[in-house]
Amino acid sequence: MRRILLVLRFDGRRYCGWQVQKNGPSVQAAVQDALERLTGRRPPLTGCGRTDAGVHALRYYAAFTAENLPPCEKLKKALNALLPRDIVVSDARPVPLGFHPRYAAQKKEYVYRLYTSAERDPFLEGLRLHYPHTFDADMLNRAAQAFVGRHDFAGFCSTGGAVKDTVRTVYSLSVRRDEREPHLAEIAVCGDGFLYNMVRIIAGTLLYVAQGRISPDALPGVLASRDRRLAGPTAPAHGLYLCEVWYPNSAFDGV
Amino acid sequence: MRRILLVLRFDGRRYCGWQVQKNGPSVQAAVQDALERLTGRRPPLTGCGRTDAGVHALRYYAAFTAENLPPCEKLKKALNALLPRDIVVSDARPVPLGFHPRYAAQKKEYVYRLYTSAERDPFLEGLRLHYPHTFDADMLNRAAQAFVGRHDFAGFCSTGGAVKDTVRTVYSLSVRRDEREPHLAEIAVCGDGFLYNMVRIIAGTLLYVAQGRISPDALPGVLASRDRRLAGPTAPAHGLYLCEVWYPNSAFDGV
Repeated sequence: MRRILLVLRFDGRRYCGWQVQKNGPSVQAAVQDALERLTGRRPPLTGCGRTDAGVHALRYYAAFTAENLPPCEKLKKALNALLPRDIVVSDARPVPLGFHPRYAAQKKEYVYRLYTSAERDPFLEGLRLHYPHTFDADMLNRAAQAFVGRHDFAGFCSTGGAVKDTVRTVYSLSVRRDEREPHLAEIAVCGDGFLYNMVRIIAGTLLYVAQGRISPDALPGVLASRDRRLAGPTAPAHGLYLCEVWYPNSAFDGV
Repeated sequence: MRRILLVLRFDGRRYCGWQVQKNGPSVQAAVQDALERLTGRRPPLTGCGRTDAGVHALRYYAAFTAENLPPCEKLKKALNALLPRDIVVSDARPVPLGFHPRYAAQKKEYVYRLYTSAERDPFLEGLRLHYPHTFDADMLNRAAQAFVGRHDFAGFCSTGGAVKDTVRTVYSLSVRRDEREPHLAEIAVCGDGFLYNMVRIIAGTLLYVAQGRISPDALPGVLASRDRRLAGPTAPAHGLYLCEVWYPNSAFDGV
C-alpha cells in the first residue's frame, strides 16, 4: 500500500466544485474516474478543502492510497492522458499513509482575480470577475491591511460551515494591478486557514470599499463587529483561485 | 440607410468559424442573431475574411447596412447585451455605403500562439498550441525572415482556396517568447493579404525547423519550390488569432 499526494491544476468552469455532488460533475469524481481506469479500483480521494462551483486551482492537493501503483512520474503521465483537458496533474509524490491534505495544511494562498476594463473580454469569461469601474489598487491595498493578523472572522463567513472556532490568522493580503496589463488586478490572501466563503467575502467587502460604500477607516470596526451584514457581498466564485498550500516538512517524514 | 463597421473580439472555441455553416454555430450567425433581435431584420453581414473553426480574433471587422439604427455607442452596448459571452463588440463606427471589410483591407496581422512547457495547462486549452519541446525563438526568428518580402506563396496554401494569384507581401514576421512567462511564445505575421491556411502552414513549417526536420537554410528553397509537400504541416487552428486589419483612411471618406 502506498499513499500518493497529487498536485492538481484545474479550470473550474465546468465543475460543481471539488466535492462529488449529485447536481453536476466534480473535480474529485473526474480524478477518481481516471484512477479507476488506471488501477481498476476507485480509491477514496481526500482533498485539501472544498471549493465551490466555478472556483479554479493553480495547485490543489489531494491524496489517495492504493496498491501496485507505477512510479510517480509514470503515474502522473498516465493520469494526465486519462483526465479531461481542464484538469492536469502537475506533480505526484509519495506521502506517509496517515497524511491528510486538509488537516496537515499549515498555510494557504488564494487570489481573487478581476479585470477592470469597460468592456467584457471573451477570453476572460468565467476566469476573472468583470468589474468595469474605478479601481484604486493602492488605496485598496492600504485598506486591506486591516484584515492582516489574528482576528475573529465570524462576520466573513457564510452560513453552512459547521466550524465553531472562527478565529483565523491572515499572514498577508495585497491588492495589486498587473504592471503590464493594468486592467488586470488581483487580491492575494495568505493565511493559516479560511472559513467558508471568507476570501470571497473579503473580496466583496474590498469592492464595496472601492465603490465608496464602506469607508477604508470602517474596516476594523466591520471586522470587530463579527456581523455578516456589515461586511460586503460574497464576490462571485469564478474570480477565485486556490494558489498554493504549504505543509510542514515533518508531514512527509517516514515515507 | 447607414452602413456600420463593427470590430469584434471573439473566442473561437465554440464556433465552426466566421462563416455561416450547416455543421455548427458560426460567429457571423451569432452576430446576425443579435442584430435581428435588436432591429427586427436580419441584414447581410460581411466579414473581413473567413476564419476556420476554432480560430480566434482580437479585432475582426464586419459591416452591415440597416435603417433606423441607434447611435453607434448605444448600438455597441445593445449588441453586447444580446451577444453570447464569447463574442464582444469592441467598436462600432459609420462607414460609406460601399465599404467592404475584405476588399478595402490593406494590411492584416495574425499571431500564432504556443506554450512550450512540458505539461498541459488547463487554462490555455483551445487557446494556444501545446508544443512541449525545445523551442529556440531567436533561431526561429532569424530563419523566419526568409518569408519576409514579396513572394509566390503557392506552396503555403491549402487547396480549397479559389485564388489564382498566389503572390503576397509579408511585411514582417517575428518569433518571440514572452519575457515574463518564457513558456509562452508567438509567431506574429503582418502582410498585405494571406492565402487559405497560409499563416498556419508558415507556423507548421517553423515548427518543423524547430524540430530540425527542415534546415533554416532550406527555407528560401522551400518557398521558391511552390510545392506544398516541401513545406511543413498546417498547424492546428486553435493557436491562431486575427489581431488587426488596417484600412486606408480614404476608405472612410464620405460618411
